[in-house]
Amino acid sequence: MQATHITGTDLDPQAAFQRRLAAVAVAVEERIAALLDDTPRRGEIARPARLLAAMRHAMLAGGKRLRPFLVIETAALFGVPFAGALNAACALELVHGYSLVHDDLPSMDDDDLRRGQPTVHRAFDEATAILAGDALLTLAFDVAADETSHSDPGVRAALVQGLARAAGVGGMVGGQMMDLAAEGRYGEVLLDEARVRRLQAMKTGALLAFGVDAGATIGRATVTERQALGTYGRALGAAFQVADDLLDLESSTEALGKRAAKDADKGKATLVAALGPERARHERDTLVETAIGALASFGARAEILRAAARFTASRKS
Amino acid sequence: MQATHITGTDLDPQAAFQRRLAAVAVAVEERIAALLDDTPRRGEIARPARLLAAMRHAMLAGGKRLRPFLVIETAALFGVPFAGALNAACALELVHGYSLVHDDLPSMDDDDLRRGQPTVHRAFDEATAILAGDALLTLAFDVAADETSHSDPGVRAALVQGLARAAGVGGMVGGQMMDLAAEGRYGEVLLDEARVRRLQAMKTGALLAFGVDAGATIGRATVTERQALGTYGRALGAAFQVADDLLDLESSTEALGKRAAKDADKGKATLVAALGPERARHERDTLVETAIGALASFGARAEILRAAARFTASRKS
Repeated sequence: MQATHITGTDLDPQAAFQRRLAAVAVAVEERIAALLDDTPRRGEIARPARLLAAMRHAMLAGGKRLRPFLVIETAALFGVPFAGALNAACALELVHGYSLVHDDLPSMDDDDLRRGQPTVHRAFDEATAILAGDALLTLAFDVAADETSHSDPGVRAALVQGLARAAGVGGMVGGQMMDLAAEGRYGEVLLDEARVRRLQAMKTGALLAFGVDAGATIGRATVTERQALGTYGRALGAAFQVADDLLDLESSTEALGKRAAKDADKGKATLVAALGPERARHERDTLVETAIGALASFGARAEILRAAARFTASRKS
Repeated sequence: MQATHITGTDLDPQAAFQRRLAAVAVAVEERIAALLDDTPRRGEIARPARLLAAMRHAMLAGGKRLRPFLVIETAALFGVPFAGALNAACALELVHGYSLVHDDLPSMDDDDLRRGQPTVHRAFDEATAILAGDALLTLAFDVAADETSHSDPGVRAALVQGLARAAGVGGMVGGQMMDLAAEGRYGEVLLDEARVRRLQAMKTGALLAFGVDAGATIGRATVTERQALGTYGRALGAAFQVADDLLDLESSTEALGKRAAKDADKGKATLVAALGPERARHERDTLVETAIGALASFGARAEILRAAARFTASRKS
């Protein structure tokens, strides 16, 4: 794997970060494509072509692969080679991918396009999209539990449980439920700042924070290191979401003149709506500083993770 | 746990089986209710009330709990106490429960009732039903990976991977995809006997067979024992599905006079349709004999598993 040898020491941190992110994206795409070939694995009976095609459509249309990057780079802090964290990274990306397929469904956000391509239920049909999401989620745990993920089965079991808790009723899926409720579907909802923060920590933050935590688990971080990385992961996750909401506000306004932003149209719960753009920008910048500050004890080794935190905020705003 | 002390040696096998099945059902219901309380676990942020209510609606409306029974009784062959297999049993039941929620959705089988109660998307709404299914599936892997499932993390990781493969693209979800295709949704499908068998082995058989395999994993069965139990599990799973299809044919016909059976109406792929009722009955009985025969080396210890095989066939036909 070429990517293993890109250390980035000869580049400025932002350029090194971009290069590593691109290398992770290539490796993740390649590994996920291999996971989704048509050969049944031990314990499987057959892999139906239509379902596999829908799963590939969902997973192999590009994407920054930021979550896998966080797993791999956090593990790298502890000297774990690229390949040693790739399975856990792919497991996390599979969960992210499934969540997009289900979020796009007509009964959820009802989106026709994702990254310029038809969403899975548009390219196939609704039933196939639901099943493809189910199968991707299931595959994620298969991959996390696989012997090639880590030599220590205790680490594999911990990765499975950590991923499940970040993704489930008390994490991402719970956050999506709260997000739908915030639209007013199930009656009026009081959306104070604290609730919006919690909703976003669940819906977006939990998976990003798990990426960092998974790297710490694989790297056998000490309790103190793990706490520092936990602070980094949570702050990064929150900054990512605020930056995204600001981006939505600004790009919609630019593109459509007077038209209000897409999130606002949908009545989505965002911190931008709760705080206003000015305070939201300040919050984003403070979160990035918190994330970077949490890495102090790791010194120069953590330069790429610091660049990742700056990147989440720099996305056009 | 009272159930631990019910050995059934003073009862005939069929009565002992029914008593153990009922005891498993009580214990599983109790444990799943506890898993679905509103306390966030370590790594979770909050558990939204609406989502939890939908998950409880799906899981706590009764059911035979045959899959958990297979885990617990197979593990018992190897001296594993009831409590030692209960987590794995519940993980499997959570996967079964999620699959019913998603199968009932409007874009799938579009069912309004399940066990006399409104299906989750009828009692709540479609978005909530999709999310509840997602959260149940995710929780299953949390439970299987949990330290309380087994003291050996290697066993926990193996349970996670085995469950994922039985449930995913090459197992249950793949079978559901093939079942939808068999209705002719995506163009004409040639449904020869071999394809129907494979479809059913995936859609229904894989989870039942996993129940037996999970018990063997927990009980640290030898390779030979595991092979014998594999034969038992696959034959039992196939017999179960044929018996179910026969039941559907007979009960519909009895109840509605000339009206064709429900499965036939939906164009479902069944062995009854492929073979005719007479040959299907013969096949079912042969499968039960195969299942029972596979347990020969376990002697009297396996009497309850033999009764379970007879039970799958005896369901009114």
